[in-house]
Amino acid sequence: MSEVTSADVESVLTTPAYHKWLGLELASCAPGDVTVRMPYREEFLADVDSSYVHGGLLATLADIAGDFAFVSQLGVGVPTVDLRIDYLRAARPEVALLGRGTVVRRGRKLGVADVVVTDTDGREIAVGRGLYAMPPGGSK
Amino acid sequence: MSEVTSADVESVLTTPAYHKWLGLELASCAPGDVTVRMPYREEFLADVDSSYVHGGLLATLADIAGDFAFVSQLGVGVPTVDLRIDYLRAARPEVALLGRGTVVRRGRKLGVADVVVTDTDGREIAVGRGLYAMPPGGSK
Amino acid sequence: MSEVTSADVESVLTTPAYHKWLGLELASCAPGDVTVRMPYREEFLADVDSSYVHGGLLATLADIAGDFAFVSQLGVGVPTVDLRIDYLRAARPEVALLGRGTVVRRGRKLGVADVVVTDTDGREIAVGRGLYAMPPGGSK
Amino acid sequence: MSEVTSADVESVLTTPAYHKWLGLELASCAPGDVTVRMPYREEFLADVDSSYVHGGLLATLADIAGDFAFVSQLGVGVPTVDLRIDYLRAARPEVALLGRGTVVRRGRKLGVADVVVTDTDGREIAVGRGLYAMPPGGSK
Repeated sequence: MSEVTSADVESVLTTPAYHKWLGLELASCAPGDVTVRMPYREEFLADVDSSYVHGGLLATLADIAGDFAFVSQLGVGVPTVDLRIDYLRAARPEVALLGRGTVVRRGRKLGVADVVVTDTDGREIAVGRGLYAMPPGGSK
Repeated sequence: MSEVTSADVESVLTTPAYHKWLGLELASCAPGDVTVRMPYREEFLADVDSSYVHGGLLATLADIAGDFAFVSQLGVGVPTVDLRIDYLRAARPEVALLGRGTVVRRGRKLGVADVVVTDTDGREIAVGRGLYAMPPGGSK
Repeated sequence: MSEVTSADVESVLTTPAYHKWLGLELASCAPGDVTVRMPYREEFLADVDSSYVHGGLLATLADIAGDFAFVSQLGVGVPTVDLRIDYLRAARPEVALLGRGTVVRRGRKLGVADVVVTDTDGREIAVGRGLYAMPPGGSK
Repeated sequence: MSEVTSADVESVLTTPAYHKWLGLELASCAPGDVTVRMPYREEFLADVDSSYVHGGLLATLADIAGDFAFVSQLGVGVPTVDLRIDYLRAARPEVALLGRGTVVRRGRKLGVADVVVTDTDGREIAVGRGLYAMPPGGSK
């Protein structure tokens, strides 16, 4: 098993079509602890008054951050089995978001990751926790 | 309190910028039971092989379907407090998705909605459950 | 694979020490759809005014009902991977509770079950959803 | 508003009938960060081989630990709105369990708490997250 590099993780993060549309960037990367940056887009707004970012995008960022906590260890994306997200505050327009995913436990078949979503002003926007299916072979 | 019409619900569904980008349509609407249709877009794809729709979009559709179960009763959107989603099968490219949200319990302050996400081929893709904050005044 | 009988399910339900203390009974049993009855005990009360049954016991009943939806198909208990419960109403003292578990999807490795907890007066007390690990060999 | 003392928290913890049966003890208590100890009982066993503690009891301890994170700030118990628990390892017989609850966010109406359940051998058994309804008046 070769070591997983930040460049490997960045490649898995930036290749999928939806990640490209979201404009995702790898903000930081250590084994089992990854932060993904999601810049603001006007299409993200949720309401008629354009006052906050859609909660579905926060769930998306949480899902991805949890997933990439494992990508940083395994070198490959892992399927999400289930996800829970608690919304703490509305996400403001014009402000980028950071999703930090950390591995809670990585078993042979399943792994649990914790996620915290903050904005780049440092406000805590949401917390999440997801369950991911580990690859049969183990890793890269 | 005036009655909430399908046209009211459709207006709340199709106005937000993110809903417009997703191309959401109101497929059916009864009080407390709404189905939202999300057509396929190429930008939805999740992986390097372009073989499935991103799970974040399924969470987004689940969030919206649960929300609109209450919109059909209240005439206004309601903030999501928390959301849980279980992924059952991968969502294929080129196929539209349907999110059906039904009210489980509507309390004075909080409401619970159940969601089933299927594709238009009839496959069950995901199930979800969300908690939503009811508006102070009650409704439209 | 021999068929799983109600007597098989009842035996798995009533053997464990904690299930005995709870006084659990099999109220109904069809493949993938089981109802477990939990009679009232004074030790179940949660508060200083003795006015409601402890939420931990509702979570316990939800966990067990979801589990036994699979026991009715497999003939053996299955480990819970994760569990979510939404509390809808307080459970009154002196009233028995029913947990109905139904299989949402049974995969090769994992299964999802839905649970509804009602009291014997017909009030909906809680809803839950759990993820369970399927046995390697499949079933009895 | 008078300050909440450890003795206040202990009193709320040890008064309810179900907490008494569980034998709960306050292991540590700071504002927003509480650890509850649940000693082992033979009635806790889950299976025919008596090899592990019932998951319903882990959910119960998680619920209580999250609740008491708020009790340490408010001086009164708070109703659980919803709860999620991820089981990481089986809990062995004969070993006491510790549930540590910490406040993630305390809003005016709702609060989120995180929970980690360990055994007294230091093994991480489960993680949980719960949503609790804050009292109308605020606190003690």
